[in-house]
Amino acid sequence: MEQRNIDFFRGTVEDMLEARNYEALRDYLSELHPYEIASLLEEFEEPEQITILSLTPPETAAEALEHLDYDDQYRLLDHSDKAVAKAILAAMGRDAIADLLMAIHPNKAQQIMAMVPEEDLESIKYLMTYPEDSAGGIMSLDYIQAREYWTIEQVIRHFRKVGQKQSIANYIYIVDAIGKLVGVLSLKELLLNDPKSLVSDVMHKNIITVLATADQEEAARIMSQYDLMILPVVNDQGRLVGVITADDIMDVIEEEDTEDIHRLGGSQPLELPYLESSLMTLFSKRIGWLVFLFVVQAVTSNILKYYENVLSSVVTLAFFIPLLADVGGNSGTQASSLIIRALALGEVTVKDIAVILFKELRVSGLIGIVMGFIGYFFAWAISGSATIGMIVACTLIVVLIMSSTIGAILPILGRMCRVDPAVFSAPFITTVVDITALTVYFNIAIRLLNID
Amino acid sequence: MEQRNIDFFRGTVEDMLEARNYEALRDYLSELHPYEIASLLEEFEEPEQITILSLTPPETAAEALEHLDYDDQYRLLDHSDKAVAKAILAAMGRDAIADLLMAIHPNKAQQIMAMVPEEDLESIKYLMTYPEDSAGGIMSLDYIQAREYWTIEQVIRHFRKVGQKQSIANYIYIVDAIGKLVGVLSLKELLLNDPKSLVSDVMHKNIITVLATADQEEAARIMSQYDLMILPVVNDQGRLVGVITADDIMDVIEEEDTEDIHRLGGSQPLELPYLESSLMTLFSKRIGWLVFLFVVQAVTSNILKYYENVLSSVVTLAFFIPLLADVGGNSGTQASSLIIRALALGEVTVKDIAVILFKELRVSGLIGIVMGFIGYFFAWAISGSATIGMIVACTLIVVLIMSSTIGAILPILGRMCRVDPAVFSAPFITTVVDITALTVYFNIAIRLLNID
Repeated sequence: MEQRNIDFFRGTVEDMLEARNYEALRDYLSELHPYEIASLLEEFEEPEQITILSLTPPETAAEALEHLDYDDQYRLLDHSDKAVAKAILAAMGRDAIADLLMAIHPNKAQQIMAMVPEEDLESIKYLMTYPEDSAGGIMSLDYIQAREYWTIEQVIRHFRKVGQKQSIANYIYIVDAIGKLVGVLSLKELLLNDPKSLVSDVMHKNIITVLATADQEEAARIMSQYDLMILPVVNDQGRLVGVITADDIMDVIEEEDTEDIHRLGGSQPLELPYLESSLMTLFSKRIGWLVFLFVVQAVTSNILKYYENVLSSVVTLAFFIPLLADVGGNSGTQASSLIIRALALGEVTVKDIAVILFKELRVSGLIGIVMGFIGYFFAWAISGSATIGMIVACTLIVVLIMSSTIGAILPILGRMCRVDPAVFSAPFITTVVDITALTVYFNIAIRLLNID
Repeated sequence: MEQRNIDFFRGTVEDMLEARNYEALRDYLSELHPYEIASLLEEFEEPEQITILSLTPPETAAEALEHLDYDDQYRLLDHSDKAVAKAILAAMGRDAIADLLMAIHPNKAQQIMAMVPEEDLESIKYLMTYPEDSAGGIMSLDYIQAREYWTIEQVIRHFRKVGQKQSIANYIYIVDAIGKLVGVLSLKELLLNDPKSLVSDVMHKNIITVLATADQEEAARIMSQYDLMILPVVNDQGRLVGVITADDIMDVIEEEDTEDIHRLGGSQPLELPYLESSLMTLFSKRIGWLVFLFVVQAVTSNILKYYENVLSSVVTLAFFIPLLADVGGNSGTQASSLIIRALALGEVTVKDIAVILFKELRVSGLIGIVMGFIGYFFAWAISGSATIGMIVACTLIVVLIMSSTIGAILPILGRMCRVDPAVFSAPFITTVVDITALTVYFNIAIRLLNID
């Protein structure tokens, strides 16, 4: 297949549907990847979606559904022919079914469960006991395990029996008599070792694992640090309960980073892609923070009213208000973005607060001196007064040091109080800095201008 | 091994080093993962680092080195015993060696190349022809390939011969007589199929690939969308030249997201983790933007000076300057963060500019009405004047609509002009919005207050 783009697929499928050439369509669909089937489904209305799904091989259809949002998954399964839906659910990973059932209304979940193969129900219910964002919530049950007292030959025989069904077959997890994870063997080692050797002699014993109750972010961090393609999940007794694969973790990383970026921008994280988010969704996710910040920023108006007489007598002071506030906000935002990201990657922890404080004080001091110089000459030029220049320069230095330090420390304090550091976003930091900047500015002005 | 934390490792290693118990240390180190060896090395000074490295199994040491920055990699290889360095380089992936050689001074690169096994030199030089951020720049050469006219039995025999050396052995890539990639087989299928079957009958033919010259971000996107663990890399004739694994891609994703987050915060991306970045590095990566933004924001002072007489006569107008600028900045930042992230994830493209514009106009219109109400009553309360309340309310509505639209559109224009959308960071948007906000504010004020 040469051309792999969605427009080409859609065109071809449209033609076949129009010509009612279902055999050709069935053959064509069997050549496509699950992701491509999913993209294709999104290009059509429901009647065609149902047709396409019924002509797609069940394994491919099952994986394709996982790319769609949960409501669409339910809708398509519910409206498809029962035999088709059952075949797809039989092919679907139990973890994917568990995710779907947890996301839809219980009544709809019941309908789906009625079509799931009976032997899978217990495992699915087990998976549903874990929180959505935990290792247990994202793990798969489609792995292969073998006993530590077997020989390589026995493992190969077991593999030939069960290997076809399981999607994760590159590693065989070795467990003891009670199911405790004790080692791992790769398929490669299975092939390269003497069939008579004992598993316990050949297997790797130092396995990195994650607790089923751990957060998905921790699983992502472990896989990323240890360069793992598959991470076994254990319960608190060390028994193997599932595995997490690198492709699932990539989705988790993408999700977590998107959340951070949305928060850093001052918005509540959107659940859906931007274009799919409705007017009301975009409105409600953004109005909250905007109103909250407005209320906090309203303090600046009170501060300015408090210094009204100073402003009246020296109006030129007003010229530099936005500038000072902006510079402080910029510097604070820089510092907080760097720290928030470093916290997320585990490069920095709350223990480092003193080191960070000291570092920021020195960096911002340097920055303050440079900006102070620039500000002095600029303010002098605009206002014609060296005193105003001095006021602006001093304020810049103080504000830059304060804002960088606040910007760097707030996320750490947040982590300490179990608040997501990304909450201390640009708008939040800017607001806090504005208030300090104005207070500093007028205090310095009053002193240097000898105003009452 | 029960406890897997760095303090425990360090303590144990320290004790063994002090007691000069090198045999025990060698055994202990062989139990650790490469990532743990790397963390350990960072806890010691050079003499101990050299000792630890010399007692670590070469394969583990090679992988551990990959976790350190390039200067440290060179330093440790250069200062280690030549036999130790040669063993490590022989075990190191050719892609990792290529990355190292490209990152250090050519003279140092020569020294390293002198210690690399001669049979690897040509491949390494080939890898170095690719840009660092391309698929070719991150791919590995440690894969296994087989000919399409072989039988399964022949493939297994070939695997037994070469499989031990290659680290990527879960899939066998099938090529034709001239090396063109035509199919792929998993190890599982190797085991489960009749040894007499022909490879060409059993292999998967619809393989997703990436061009060696493509950007690493594209490789990451493909692997993420298609849920691939390994992505084969081909040249423009379709010949297989390397593979990219999921763990390498996780590093790429982390790198790209970190860059975006640093840019969104208004800083040049740091190359190293925050704590490892020197004072001068942090200073230089941040001062650039700060000075640039200062120069742009200085326009606000000119604008205020222009409206000096308005300010003098109605000082209360000054009270709301920071508030209006902030609200606009917040809204603009929200919009730009959402769009920048959507662009990065491929959820939105430049073709969607009209849709986005229309969406933002409506969302910000709604937001503007709500904030306008709040602003009206607030400004009335603070200033005692309903007219001022009206001025503030009108300005809020106009500013909110303009800032959200600017915030959403700038990144798209950036993408069109091949500028990284993340450059349109919070500080940048805030600045642009401030200038518009002030201009709008005073124009409305002059009109409503009938000032000359």
